[in-house]
Amino acid sequence: MVIEDLYPSRTDSTARWIDRHDPVVYAKKGAPTTALTQQQIESFEKKGFLIIKNVFSAEEIEDYNEEFQRLADDPILGVKEEFIQEPESRIVRSIFAAHTFSRKYQALTEDPRIRKKVEYLLDEEVYIHQARINAKPGFSGKEFYWHSDFETWHVEDGMPRMRAISCLITMTENKSYNGSLMLMPGSHKKYVSCIGKTPENHYKNSLRRQKYGVPDEESLEALYEECGIEVAECPPGSVILFDCNTMHGSSSNISPMPRRNIFFVFNAKSNRLEAPFGGTSPRPDFIAHR
Amino acid sequence: MVIEDLYPSRTDSTARWIDRHDPVVYAKKGAPTTALTQQQIESFEKKGFLIIKNVFSAEEIEDYNEEFQRLADDPILGVKEEFIQEPESRIVRSIFAAHTFSRKYQALTEDPRIRKKVEYLLDEEVYIHQARINAKPGFSGKEFYWHSDFETWHVEDGMPRMRAISCLITMTENKSYNGSLMLMPGSHKKYVSCIGKTPENHYKNSLRRQKYGVPDEESLEALYEECGIEVAECPPGSVILFDCNTMHGSSSNISPMPRRNIFFVFNAKSNRLEAPFGGTSPRPDFIAHR
Repeated sequence: MVIEDLYPSRTDSTARWIDRHDPVVYAKKGAPTTALTQQQIESFEKKGFLIIKNVFSAEEIEDYNEEFQRLADDPILGVKEEFIQEPESRIVRSIFAAHTFSRKYQALTEDPRIRKKVEYLLDEEVYIHQARINAKPGFSGKEFYWHSDFETWHVEDGMPRMRAISCLITMTENKSYNGSLMLMPGSHKKYVSCIGKTPENHYKNSLRRQKYGVPDEESLEALYEECGIEVAECPPGSVILFDCNTMHGSSSNISPMPRRNIFFVFNAKSNRLEAPFGGTSPRPDFIAHR
Repeated sequence: MVIEDLYPSRTDSTARWIDRHDPVVYAKKGAPTTALTQQQIESFEKKGFLIIKNVFSAEEIEDYNEEFQRLADDPILGVKEEFIQEPESRIVRSIFAAHTFSRKYQALTEDPRIRKKVEYLLDEEVYIHQARINAKPGFSGKEFYWHSDFETWHVEDGMPRMRAISCLITMTENKSYNGSLMLMPGSHKKYVSCIGKTPENHYKNSLRRQKYGVPDEESLEALYEECGIEVAECPPGSVILFDCNTMHGSSSNISPMPRRNIFFVFNAKSNRLEAPFGGTSPRPDFIAHR
């Protein structure tokens, strides 16, 4: 069976802009919910992201930070593939799939304060496609270049359609000076294909520093002209929901304050992964649960 | 003759905090001026910097940008030591001493809209200690780690006292997302010595990426606790004045928009350079005019 690829990428020597074929908000317009306000839903549809402050209490966040530290300091866990270090230091940059070895993070993936919002927007039951804690340590946290997550998940993991939402839970202050998430509002409605082919086992380096699967500078300039950039500054305990195709990135962090966030990706059950559209072998389970 | 070193640095294996021995504002309190308001003067004294918007017109700034491009594109000038490239690309990151080979920049160093402000604050005639254009290109502009300029100018150039002011003229939008100047307000009243000794010819690498003469992380954490961080967001044509000892740095720039600023350092004539306090040979004239 040949499946038509609606979102081809990394197949060509020039970038293509493709209109989004999928809804952003899957719920019927005006469908009642207590999970989100109508204004929040409209804003998510328009901008491709939504920032909600004060969702988690200071005590809860302290708890998640302690659990992070316990994991990061564990010498036995530390050798697992799930632990990613900064390119120029040995400091833990990300922990993948913490919910598979921490009960606290497992429970958090089920928290109705996030799940109900996501399930409303996607109008379906969801599962965890990817989970990680992004530590971005102080003094030496490196930037993360512009990308659409969907582009990677489609090409490298075989996610068929745009029916997934990322949920960030802020564990420290996210300020403009410590490498906050930066988003291009409205960019989720265009799909910008990337130039070039993906090499095998690309994920091993790309988690530390990206080289492939990044948009070209000309496309980014045009998107920036159209959308601008919004810096997602917010206090600890906030939730940032963003569509899988929203163009985003983050600057380096030379400030003394780490910018640490929990990152869960919820995918609609009907949107389960197939064979990667780029033709490479599937990435390991801790990066893309199947 | 032995000159006592009031601000020793890079001599020890631990950092020392020394109280500032010098005034911040040298003008007599309340001395009349049309160059600055009393509020601006007080703010500069307290925070160690001052942001003034709309000092230069859009036409003037366009003119300086064109002149920058002309210089950056000149293949003959491009090989000069004054032209500094980004560590990982060949893009021009800084041009030093442009006022020595560009009439436009030479004239700008004399502009009363900046000179009168600086001469009031330092209560003396001044000269250019250092001049540069900091280009910080889009997509790949690298961060500049925390430092007090005075620490370097004292140790490597022999600047005796804190009686110099840096003046930034913004040539593009300076946004929090394109690597704006970040300052720690109030940090100019403490001198934080750096750990370790300076190697010979250190400047050749330090202009591209710093390794020596940077404060230790513990001191930066303490300073941050006390002072916080302010991001100097402002439109093109603004002027940012900051004291030579204000702790500052900047993040990387992955946004498509370059963050380009003209940077002049004015030193009081009575504060002319002596032999470097660190005991190394003086740096070349284009970095520290004598």
